[in-house]
Amino acid sequence: MSVTHPAGFVAAGAAIGLKASGNKDFALVVNQGPTFDSATVFTSNRCKANPVLWSEQVVKDGVVRAVILNSGGANCYTGPEGFLTTHQVAEEVGKVLDIGAGDVVVCSTGLIGLANDRQQLLDGVHTLHAQLSADGGNDAAEAIMTTDTVSKQVVVEGPDGAWSIGGMAKGAGMLAPALATMLVVITTDAVVPAAQLDASLRAATRVSFDRLDSDGCQSTNDTVTLMASGASGVTPTAEEFTAALTDLCTQLARQLLADAEGADHEIAITTLNAATEDDAVEVGRSVARSNLFKAAVFGKDPNWGRVLASVGTTSAAFDPADLDVAMNGVWVCRNSTPAEDPSLVDLSPRAVTVTIDLKAGDAEATVWTNDLTHAYVHENSAYSS
Amino acid sequence: MSVTHPAGFVAAGAAIGLKASGNKDFALVVNQGPTFDSATVFTSNRCKANPVLWSEQVVKDGVVRAVILNSGGANCYTGPEGFLTTHQVAEEVGKVLDIGAGDVVVCSTGLIGLANDRQQLLDGVHTLHAQLSADGGNDAAEAIMTTDTVSKQVVVEGPDGAWSIGGMAKGAGMLAPALATMLVVITTDAVVPAAQLDASLRAATRVSFDRLDSDGCQSTNDTVTLMASGASGVTPTAEEFTAALTDLCTQLARQLLADAEGADHEIAITTLNAATEDDAVEVGRSVARSNLFKAAVFGKDPNWGRVLASVGTTSAAFDPADLDVAMNGVWVCRNSTPAEDPSLVDLSPRAVTVTIDLKAGDAEATVWTNDLTHAYVHENSAYSS
Repeated sequence: MSVTHPAGFVAAGAAIGLKASGNKDFALVVNQGPTFDSATVFTSNRCKANPVLWSEQVVKDGVVRAVILNSGGANCYTGPEGFLTTHQVAEEVGKVLDIGAGDVVVCSTGLIGLANDRQQLLDGVHTLHAQLSADGGNDAAEAIMTTDTVSKQVVVEGPDGAWSIGGMAKGAGMLAPALATMLVVITTDAVVPAAQLDASLRAATRVSFDRLDSDGCQSTNDTVTLMASGASGVTPTAEEFTAALTDLCTQLARQLLADAEGADHEIAITTLNAATEDDAVEVGRSVARSNLFKAAVFGKDPNWGRVLASVGTTSAAFDPADLDVAMNGVWVCRNSTPAEDPSLVDLSPRAVTVTIDLKAGDAEATVWTNDLTHAYVHENSAYSS
Repeated sequence: MSVTHPAGFVAAGAAIGLKASGNKDFALVVNQGPTFDSATVFTSNRCKANPVLWSEQVVKDGVVRAVILNSGGANCYTGPEGFLTTHQVAEEVGKVLDIGAGDVVVCSTGLIGLANDRQQLLDGVHTLHAQLSADGGNDAAEAIMTTDTVSKQVVVEGPDGAWSIGGMAKGAGMLAPALATMLVVITTDAVVPAAQLDASLRAATRVSFDRLDSDGCQSTNDTVTLMASGASGVTPTAEEFTAALTDLCTQLARQLLADAEGADHEIAITTLNAATEDDAVEVGRSVARSNLFKAAVFGKDPNWGRVLASVGTTSAAFDPADLDVAMNGVWVCRNSTPAEDPSLVDLSPRAVTVTIDLKAGDAEATVWTNDLTHAYVHENSAYSS
């Protein structure tokens, strides 16, 4: 039940006709308090969708009381009329919930440049309001799916079950930092002030969603909103809360990775002994964005040369003549020369690990990506038609 | 006849058994003078192949008398033994031509991590030497092909045919700046001192090979070597020579684009009214590296939202709310909102143009790329197996 697992939250998901398939396409998550602290992070893409432009204003005071989300249209590059649609949807949510529109985050996902029918959305707000329930988390999670084949939901319990965090996410293509192309709503009944929520959310996303780079394409609509109802009456320590939130975000990120469009493999690229954590992330990201490497994994070819060719494009500290590379634990390259027999690497399983030893320090990081497959090309060449 | 068209050059290409197919795989181009001025640019990848490490030393004095090139193995990440192979091949070429090994550029292309048989290469030098001829340009161009389906050759004549430039290139995958994955040998019988050759070559590659970004993957072996024999006795102006060389490099780059692995479309992305030329290149490059955009073109889907999503990831100067985008001349987006009907865009032809108007200045640049196709994935998932 994800976002409605923590006390103090109700949600709903419904089909209001935005998707041609007739599937659920509109969701609402409401914080019933007693606290309304929140934190949100957005895409760093400069071409932002209208709901992002709206929500950036909403979250500034640290108070969010509801999140409304639609699939079936990104409301991005739809101009002032599109912004007005977002604004009016927030007003309508405020009206039915008797709260200010300025406390309503709006999220949209789907095709860029497509304007949804405004009246359909406004009517839909009433449909959702009538269905709000403490069991509505699952419906909400289903309503935000686009090319996702499964909904993504996670619950993490605090010590002794005194409080919990619930999260739902959508995202299967345009998955790249920062953030992956995704919408995420996270709820908690812990008592956590907005400033701590913000610090914890930034710490958690930095090592989870920000290290997911499925296809290198950064979205215009990414939003992660965290709301705290305080309904448990329990105040966790900052460390406890950040740890639980990081666990939840990491689990959601892995669910996104597992459902990435057309992927045959989930690839964890770990860079060891980097001079800095930033170096380790840069190296991992460069490999995650190599189409040649990703196609080789699809072909079950342990082509470590393509790994090194990517590493060489970075500014990380390393000696090009002294790099080690392992695939699935087989050290196919030592000291930048061929080592163990690549035929020992079995790339049949869906999970693949690549380990790169830079021998330049003691920092490390893991970046996750997928392989480049016929199915990815197929799905993304046919998506909008 | 490409590289042997200008006076003062002989060349050869032969099959010495490096390729399992039995096709030609070893080439030699020799400058017979009277001048031996040269200029060379290399990959900026920090993980450089052994022949690049060798040749970087060779070219420092501006004198190059011969270039020897093999396909069937990149001699990259093959360690000190691989470097020794490169060194000994250069020595052998020096011996048969009675020149110093320090004037011999070595180029290799093929699989990374594969060590070719040294004796086979040394014997091959004699085979090539015996076949050197003023008609050998075509054989040499064929011998450097890997996944290329056609050889790439161009000749550009100076005014009144008083001098000429010839060039050959290979490259079909790992095509990205700077440079594209490629080997290029360019010859001229004009009288041009090394310093001018260097300036002209950098000017020409900057707007040709460096703006080709077929698949975003940067090679470990890229080398472009230009040799001037002075055999025409004619000294062109710097402007004349740079213009002719730029024309030749641009033609070769377009030939690489046309033969890129698995591509269905050749895409020219032109960024207009940028604040700086660097901005225009950055914007074009970001679109050229969007797998989602490239897959959409393969699917004949004029998905301009994916263009803007890429533009938004750059640091170029522009107003996100005031961008125009055209595809094949149809302005599908004006002022960051939908404009002309995307269904007017016919993406059936192989040639596609994308035009982005940043409205931020008067600089412009064109970056070339290919679409992302099933055939690309297939070819690159099966290449080394």
